Amino acid sequence: MMTRPIPFEVTDTLLDQIRQLIEERRNAGLEELLQDVHHADIAEILDALNTEEATYLVKLLDSEKTSEALMELDEDVRERLLDNLTAKEIASELEELDTDDAVDFISELDDEMQRKVISAIEDEEHARDIVEMLMYDEDSAGGLMAKELVKVRETWTVAGCVRKMRAQAQNVTRVHSVYVVDAQDRLIGRLSLKDLLTADAKSRIADIYIANVDHVNVKDKGEEVARLMQKYDLEAIPVTNDAGTLLGRITIDDIVDFIRDEADRDYQMAAGISEDVEADDSVLRIVRARLPWLLLGLVGSLCAVYIMQGFGGALTSHPELFFFTPLIAAMAGNVGVQSSAIIVQGLVNDNVKGSLFLRMVKEISINLINGAAVGILVIAFAAMISLETMVGLTIAIAMLCVMIVASLIGTFVPIILHKRGIDPAIATGPFITTSNDIFGIFLFFHLAKWILGF
Amino acid sequence: MMTRPIPFEVTDTLLDQIRQLIEERRNAGLEELLQDVHHADIAEILDALNTEEATYLVKLLDSEKTSEALMELDEDVRERLLDNLTAKEIASELEELDTDDAVDFISELDDEMQRKVISAIEDEEHARDIVEMLMYDEDSAGGLMAKELVKVRETWTVAGCVRKMRAQAQNVTRVHSVYVVDAQDRLIGRLSLKDLLTADAKSRIADIYIANVDHVNVKDKGEEVARLMQKYDLEAIPVTNDAGTLLGRITIDDIVDFIRDEADRDYQMAAGISEDVEADDSVLRIVRARLPWLLLGLVGSLCAVYIMQGFGGALTSHPELFFFTPLIAAMAGNVGVQSSAIIVQGLVNDNVKGSLFLRMVKEISINLINGAAVGILVIAFAAMISLETMVGLTIAIAMLCVMIVASLIGTFVPIILHKRGIDPAIATGPFITTSNDIFGIFLFFHLAKWILGF
Repeated sequence: MMTRPIPFEVTDTLLDQIRQLIEERRNAGLEELLQDVHHADIAEILDALNTEEATYLVKLLDSEKTSEALMELDEDVRERLLDNLTAKEIASELEELDTDDAVDFISELDDEMQRKVISAIEDEEHARDIVEMLMYDEDSAGGLMAKELVKVRETWTVAGCVRKMRAQAQNVTRVHSVYVVDAQDRLIGRLSLKDLLTADAKSRIADIYIANVDHVNVKDKGEEVARLMQKYDLEAIPVTNDAGTLLGRITIDDIVDFIRDEADRDYQMAAGISEDVEADDSVLRIVRARLPWLLLGLVGSLCAVYIMQGFGGALTSHPELFFFTPLIAAMAGNVGVQSSAIIVQGLVNDNVKGSLFLRMVKEISINLINGAAVGILVIAFAAMISLETMVGLTIAIAMLCVMIVASLIGTFVPIILHKRGIDPAIATGPFITTSNDIFGIFLFFHLAKWILGF
Repeated sequence: MMTRPIPFEVTDTLLDQIRQLIEERRNAGLEELLQDVHHADIAEILDALNTEEATYLVKLLDSEKTSEALMELDEDVRERLLDNLTAKEIASELEELDTDDAVDFISELDDEMQRKVISAIEDEEHARDIVEMLMYDEDSAGGLMAKELVKVRETWTVAGCVRKMRAQAQNVTRVHSVYVVDAQDRLIGRLSLKDLLTADAKSRIADIYIANVDHVNVKDKGEEVARLMQKYDLEAIPVTNDAGTLLGRITIDDIVDFIRDEADRDYQMAAGISEDVEADDSVLRIVRARLPWLLLGLVGSLCAVYIMQGFGGALTSHPELFFFTPLIAAMAGNVGVQSSAIIVQGLVNDNVKGSLFLRMVKEISINLINGAAVGILVIAFAAMISLETMVGLTIAIAMLCVMIVASLIGTFVPIILHKRGIDPAIATGPFITTSNDIFGIFLFFHLAKWILGF
């Protein structure tokens, strides 16, 4: 009944079959085999083949399919493939893409190749749109939008509108909304296809369109667009310039990718990995993404070593304090990461409200409770391993203080960064753990010295 | 030109105005003020008001608006509001919602209230749909789908189809696709609205529909649906049962929420927070989410204390080793978190391929390079603070070994969990840091003892 089984699987058998056909240059066989395969699956196949085989496939198959497949590939795989294509071949791939994808695609090429490819594009309007869009910041509404959309004049009738739309709709992959513009191409409203379908053919657009239309400015930030589209459950949003002229539209599928990328980046930052590394990347690339954060952690720990050296005198009087330093560092780190994660998510979802003073009181309360609970267990453990009661108590009190300070650092560093327009996510993970390591050990020994008097 | 400004802001002035109107019971004024406000903004307003004021607003405003606003609220806020409503009032909110939202809504009530509310729903078909859907697992395709959709018979003509669709479309918020079914209500294809708009009125549906339709089974997991819809850029996907009968459809906006929730949960797990806590939750709720992970970390660190006590003899011969324990614990933790984060993301995005042996070789290579780089700096630092060369070298070598072991634990624990059907994200953050703390300190002192011979 259904011709494409779901889930479609790119199996080793299929790959072997493709490799065999490529080796024997059996083009007809390849085309037939891959005829009904979705471009997302073609991308998986290209990813699994070696560069030479993948290039062969890209040149052989219809650009309509390969262009979309190329878009789905990882940047580094795509780059390797494009290196083997001529400007003409790249241009014919771009002809098949919506402007937003075409721009993402072309912006990865070097300047000279960009010029060559653009001049090789046959559709002049498409080329002009691409050149225009290359000027927008990648993470702005302008960088996310596509120029392809269906727009109608308020003065048209429904019947005339449907007629003219047929022509426009052929360039648009999916029609979400029909935008209504005035004589100066300024956005004045929208029509849903549903409305158009259920309206009388003779009515004028001016009588049936909805004037209440959400839109974003071409210079708005991507995050802001994502927040709006999520909040208002929009599937597409028109983009205008300062004069109100309709420039393009952003669709929800691009926003899904944007949200995914943002979430991945925050996650990786929290884990101490520079953005955009995948399990399948090369050893050197992963080393480059991980080493800087380890060096940062190293600096923190070496500072801690230095601080402890200063308290070397306590080695004879209270050696047991040195057994507890990993505990102090771990608690400072864990509490700091917890606090920063909650704040960073709150800042992303825009629900950090109320005064900073109240937030401070709240963090202190939370960590007084948690610190007391953990502290009691530490005192019990200290008694169990036969430490003096006073030493156990000192460690517990110092730990409680360290936890409170760590939570305040974890809470307020992201807030301050956010206020200064810096992504607060960089303050989670390694940065917070490192500074809390140093500060925790410092505070711990000073408090211990003060209470135990060594 | 535009009647609703974007971004609309729920300001303190607006809230004060609303509070004033509620206090003075000026219903007409309230209704007028909130007439053009989007339900997502109404939700923000309800969230900011106290329970009594919010209840007043919910009872006053049209269910069409408040039902959607209630859906946007946090579970705990919604619960407090629903406690103040009668079964009849809740039922009238549910009447306005799509079945998927209505089910999410009603499943939060206790069993008795559920029965009362369902029997108070006037639309019998809606009530029957809700009862049917309550049986599906919340995270399955059945739990995510809505019953509202537009379906047509293959035997109809385009003109007849448009006529019949008008009636159906009124219950459907947004029409994505028109589904084509056979006489037994089995899904056999789809039509886009675009196709319908551009087709000849006299053609038969059988001649123009697309047989190639992606669909999921009602029992499929939510993650699988999210993966498919992202991979194939789908905006809606029909849901069928084993017999192929069309049961409902899942739209991309529900999947966006699902993706967001999943990403948030992974992020929070990595940070050591039990799921679903927000910056604005109560102190006790946040304590409950954070304390268990701190206790887990405590256990790890106390084991480390115990291990170090066993090496107490080294305090006189090599006290400096004890200055470096936070460094060892930090490196073990950082490396473990990095490795696990990469693997967890890889498992989510389904790109962890190849043999486990090759992955092991890769992890070891990465950490040999990183460990050597960090190790050289440790040796230099040790020389700087006048430690014996042999001690510096020992620390560096032990650290390198600890890093390699930590990375293997970080890589393979998630893979093993994933193979057993457990969410690998629980292995990031506290679990990995804790086990690597214990293991790191243990390995460090054993290697040091072996090399330095104390």
